[in-house]
Amino acid sequence: VRKKLRVLVIMGSASDWPTMKAAVRRLREFGVEHQVAVKSAHRTPEDVVKIAKRARPNRFGAIIAAAGGAAHLAGLAAANTTLPVIGVPVKSKNLRGLDSLLSTVQMPAGIPVATVAIASADNAALLAIQILAVRDRVLAKKLEEHRKEMVAMVRRDSRRVARLARGNLDG
Amino acid sequence: VRKKLRVLVIMGSASDWPTMKAAVRRLREFGVEHQVAVKSAHRTPEDVVKIAKRARPNRFGAIIAAAGGAAHLAGLAAANTTLPVIGVPVKSKNLRGLDSLLSTVQMPAGIPVATVAIASADNAALLAIQILAVRDRVLAKKLEEHRKEMVAMVRRDSRRVARLARGNLDG
Amino acid sequence: VRKKLRVLVIMGSASDWPTMKAAVRRLREFGVEHQVAVKSAHRTPEDVVKIAKRARPNRFGAIIAAAGGAAHLAGLAAANTTLPVIGVPVKSKNLRGLDSLLSTVQMPAGIPVATVAIASADNAALLAIQILAVRDRVLAKKLEEHRKEMVAMVRRDSRRVARLARGNLDG
Amino acid sequence: VRKKLRVLVIMGSASDWPTMKAAVRRLREFGVEHQVAVKSAHRTPEDVVKIAKRARPNRFGAIIAAAGGAAHLAGLAAANTTLPVIGVPVKSKNLRGLDSLLSTVQMPAGIPVATVAIASADNAALLAIQILAVRDRVLAKKLEEHRKEMVAMVRRDSRRVARLARGNLDG
Amino acid sequence: VRKKLRVLVIMGSASDWPTMKAAVRRLREFGVEHQVAVKSAHRTPEDVVKIAKRARPNRFGAIIAAAGGAAHLAGLAAANTTLPVIGVPVKSKNLRGLDSLLSTVQMPAGIPVATVAIASADNAALLAIQILAVRDRVLAKKLEEHRKEMVAMVRRDSRRVARLARGNLDG
Amino acid sequence: VRKKLRVLVIMGSASDWPTMKAAVRRLREFGVEHQVAVKSAHRTPEDVVKIAKRARPNRFGAIIAAAGGAAHLAGLAAANTTLPVIGVPVKSKNLRGLDSLLSTVQMPAGIPVATVAIASADNAALLAIQILAVRDRVLAKKLEEHRKEMVAMVRRDSRRVARLARGNLDG
Amino acid sequence: VRKKLRVLVIMGSASDWPTMKAAVRRLREFGVEHQVAVKSAHRTPEDVVKIAKRARPNRFGAIIAAAGGAAHLAGLAAANTTLPVIGVPVKSKNLRGLDSLLSTVQMPAGIPVATVAIASADNAALLAIQILAVRDRVLAKKLEEHRKEMVAMVRRDSRRVARLARGNLDG
Amino acid sequence: VRKKLRVLVIMGSASDWPTMKAAVRRLREFGVEHQVAVKSAHRTPEDVVKIAKRARPNRFGAIIAAAGGAAHLAGLAAANTTLPVIGVPVKSKNLRGLDSLLSTVQMPAGIPVATVAIASADNAALLAIQILAVRDRVLAKKLEEHRKEMVAMVRRDSRRVARLARGNLDG
Repeated sequence: VRKKLRVLVIMGSASDWPTMKAAVRRLREFGVEHQVAVKSAHRTPEDVVKIAKRARPNRFGAIIAAAGGAAHLAGLAAANTTLPVIGVPVKSKNLRGLDSLLSTVQMPAGIPVATVAIASADNAALLAIQILAVRDRVLAKKLEEHRKEMVAMVRRDSRRVARLARGNLDG
Repeated sequence: VRKKLRVLVIMGSASDWPTMKAAVRRLREFGVEHQVAVKSAHRTPEDVVKIAKRARPNRFGAIIAAAGGAAHLAGLAAANTTLPVIGVPVKSKNLRGLDSLLSTVQMPAGIPVATVAIASADNAALLAIQILAVRDRVLAKKLEEHRKEMVAMVRRDSRRVARLARGNLDG
Repeated sequence: VRKKLRVLVIMGSASDWPTMKAAVRRLREFGVEHQVAVKSAHRTPEDVVKIAKRARPNRFGAIIAAAGGAAHLAGLAAANTTLPVIGVPVKSKNLRGLDSLLSTVQMPAGIPVATVAIASADNAALLAIQILAVRDRVLAKKLEEHRKEMVAMVRRDSRRVARLARGNLDG
Repeated sequence: VRKKLRVLVIMGSASDWPTMKAAVRRLREFGVEHQVAVKSAHRTPEDVVKIAKRARPNRFGAIIAAAGGAAHLAGLAAANTTLPVIGVPVKSKNLRGLDSLLSTVQMPAGIPVATVAIASADNAALLAIQILAVRDRVLAKKLEEHRKEMVAMVRRDSRRVARLARGNLDG
Repeated sequence: VRKKLRVLVIMGSASDWPTMKAAVRRLREFGVEHQVAVKSAHRTPEDVVKIAKRARPNRFGAIIAAAGGAAHLAGLAAANTTLPVIGVPVKSKNLRGLDSLLSTVQMPAGIPVATVAIASADNAALLAIQILAVRDRVLAKKLEEHRKEMVAMVRRDSRRVARLARGNLDG
Repeated sequence: VRKKLRVLVIMGSASDWPTMKAAVRRLREFGVEHQVAVKSAHRTPEDVVKIAKRARPNRFGAIIAAAGGAAHLAGLAAANTTLPVIGVPVKSKNLRGLDSLLSTVQMPAGIPVATVAIASADNAALLAIQILAVRDRVLAKKLEEHRKEMVAMVRRDSRRVARLARGNLDG
Repeated sequence: VRKKLRVLVIMGSASDWPTMKAAVRRLREFGVEHQVAVKSAHRTPEDVVKIAKRARPNRFGAIIAAAGGAAHLAGLAAANTTLPVIGVPVKSKNLRGLDSLLSTVQMPAGIPVATVAIASADNAALLAIQILAVRDRVLAKKLEEHRKEMVAMVRRDSRRVARLARGNLDG
Repeated sequence: VRKKLRVLVIMGSASDWPTMKAAVRRLREFGVEHQVAVKSAHRTPEDVVKIAKRARPNRFGAIIAAAGGAAHLAGLAAANTTLPVIGVPVKSKNLRGLDSLLSTVQMPAGIPVATVAIASADNAALLAIQILAVRDRVLAKKLEEHRKEMVAMVRRDSRRVARLARGNLDG
């Protein structure tokens, strides 16, 4: 029996935690084991290198890396592992995440980062789960279930909004 | 013995082929089976839905989807499968791919697209291979080899440039 | 006697409703029948396809589709009907609607989306009414009346501001 | 029997003609009568006002207005008619149409412009045809045919690209 | 004796008044006569044309025109007078004035608009005064005085900040 | 009799000359005396200060200042004169003039620069002429003539394009 | 014994002080002497020239210059000294510092400005200290200490976030 | 006698050499010793760390680091030395260096990168020389000479352009 793979969640600063906890919440919901750490590409580059290099032997199947501004964390992690690295561009204070997005996604040939939307920690977790689910039927099934719940939720929302639209608009 | 997984490569228009053939070249090099098709989110949306829905039963492990402008192809594929979908924002004629990038990466909660750099077909293939390699030691090994070759190439380049820098600059 | 045409108003998420109710208010004011629903290009793509395909037989004359971020809703609707589809780029949290705008307007050859300003639900409704009014004299007349009211309002505002400008400025 | 409606195509400068002739080609193909003129919001504003005001009595059903830079032509036309006005942001020399796009689409409350993609003259014509087709079954049918041709073309392209992908890539 | 010239201040909407009153305050301070009105390029284009055409015979020497979004007011005024027209791009709700700026400044050959910074009503007034002062020594002298006051103010500020910097920083 | 005023045209680099000669051509056409010089805000700041300070006593009525990138020339000139300074943002190599535009137009309170479109040297000259024409009937008349010529030219263009549109499109 | 060098901190407006005091705090912490002043490139250009010209004889080793909008202060200082000038683009009200950044960093050939991130006063001070530390072992040692403290802080943060991630997420 | 310091010039790819040779040319001209290497933050991160860590003991006084796209090279170097690191954002293929600029300059607190203009290798070298010249009178003198030459060159250019402006414009 193959061992379950885990997801590594790293972020460049403790201030990214309010953004990133949605990823942890989603991983928990899917029963995917994970480890969370603050690692800075600029202040603790050696720690980033070390955790990335050991990620595969440490039974991780994907890395989620979140950072803002000149967001190099995902790139530095990707440079030190051949596991898929998912980049979350954190919203920056002044340029609202445009700098984070470009710094994360515009990687040079040879070292891709799987970038999700600005601040989209939940989607980063779902993408990590999708990657693990490529070879894991149970997870794949859970993803299908999650999709169905989203359909049901959108339909419920649709009925509610339709009611508001027929009523006094402000509900 | 588990079956080998394949990679599905779709693009919104035949005009994306010059960009996307780098992905096919890379998949070939790694010996990863693949299928290539033109599918348009706007002109043949039903074909996109069909191919995405059947991707998992058809033994695909990842989908690469490339499109430019209001680039909806990766998103529409992602909406119809729980396999990881890798989005390649193709360079657009007027806005140079900024529209393609934002249309591909800024996905709403629930449906991630793993976005790579503008026009970065090679990296899309590498990311797909990394995803397959999560549970495939042979592929993982090949990725390590590829990394080593890149190191060797950069070092060769470094010696060459250092020579130019000591010489007449224009080499 | 030709039957009155209706306007279909769809949005990608219930969170778009505060933006979109201005469209409903305007349609009511002009006495144009309408239907409102939440349909997500990514979470319920089949529902989008279905409602768009049936729009013409269901006596709709125009579709208003509002979404934010990688805003594919208008494009997916447009791909499934030959009715005019009006896209409303909803203001997104981080990029303030620039992503929504480009995702909505930069459609490929063959499938246009009639895009209005970011968050401009009221104008989307007016544009839908203008489309219906091409062959509807009563509606056309109402539009003319509305224009005249706007002229009167601007002139009233002008007198008020002129007074403030001659007075203590802060009125 | 109702009279056929026509489409008015105006552009801010003769230099927009190479962009705009695609619109004329499409209108011809659909057998939609049209009139073409150069009218500048800044150099001949009175001519714009006059042609816009007379558009409805002159049996036009939609106006296509193309301009670049501080692109005010569509807005000025829209201010002087209640017909739907379709704006084509022409690619500008330095900012590549971003200025044209924002000047065309970001209209204030009350006066919408139905904006299409930068330089997308063909789509502007298709949108005009869609507007006329709301109440014209023959045109609606032709639009359906056109869609089917696009599907066939994409599928042909797909087979061709798949062949290239199995062959020497460069076809 | 030549008659004193006046400054015409127009804005696209009453909502621009909080921005524009700084211009009126500055004109008052310099004793420059002015007239203030709300004129909309889109809702009352004829009123804009009329006031611009009569500006020179009505003894105006410069026009200040402020608008946001697809900001066509300054351009439309400039198209209808040969007086210098100063454009103030008003901060827009979603794109923060970038659309207003490009719509105001990127005018086509033949019809310039003298554009100042986003929301910079005070500078618009100073520029209008500078234009009148080209041939008015009294005004020119007042401008020199104003410059000297600014120098004094900056130097006062410098001493205050230097004190804070030597003290507890938060003053 | 009042003396004729002149226009001072300065640019940050000789490489701006191909852009700026259109301004000189227009000034010649209107018979407006002018002086042309290369003055760099960064390489010859003292020369900029000197020429700006002497501009009014040297009988200039307006200054045109053109620069690219971090375009400080117009601002530095404006800081050293109370004459109106017209800024021409020159197209920059990499950012295509967006940097030049923002550096020129976003001036702080107290020191306005009358900014025209990117690379719009002709309009800068026309604006300078408009400023001189505020108190110069002969020039004002010439401006009116120029406007009429533009109207005639647009109308000629319109007839030509209409012919192409009725013919084989490619003329 | 060589004399200690000082750091000159100038800003375009007293309103930049809340941003810039972080620089002063850092310089104090490292025991680096400094002088602080408000100098405006536009309102007091002569004072900028004077302070920059005297910077080297006045024993300064680096200049930090902060400004927003059309941020010319660092450039004007750099034009008047051969000392390294560090530019801090201050966040601007409307464009959030994008204008400040481009105006500061996009300097022409010959006159560099060492630009740091938008509003990044602390880093400007650290860069100034790094410059002084090139030839000052004591300062270089302090910088090493500071780096180690940052490592320790990131690791503490990492343990804290890991705890939150294992607990109730909201800590 | 203190030893002369050297400048280390690294770039992320051999393709940056055509941009960077201008830096080498300038360093040669000033007689500043230098070493040139290709080091990639993503393909050879360990080599970057190594060369940065040894820079100070290896008698370097400043590092110039050039990269494009998600340009992490300067940041990674800066994270591994306390020497001043000068970042050159190389022009990228699609986004023309905007991504390179933001990735280089928007560094987090603690680790500054002294960023120069896009592709501005010459200025990077001058900045490095300015840093070395803080404590080196001979270099400082050479910088003064270089400034004077630039003044002379601008003045020569000015006379030439003035001649063209009085002549046939096209010289």
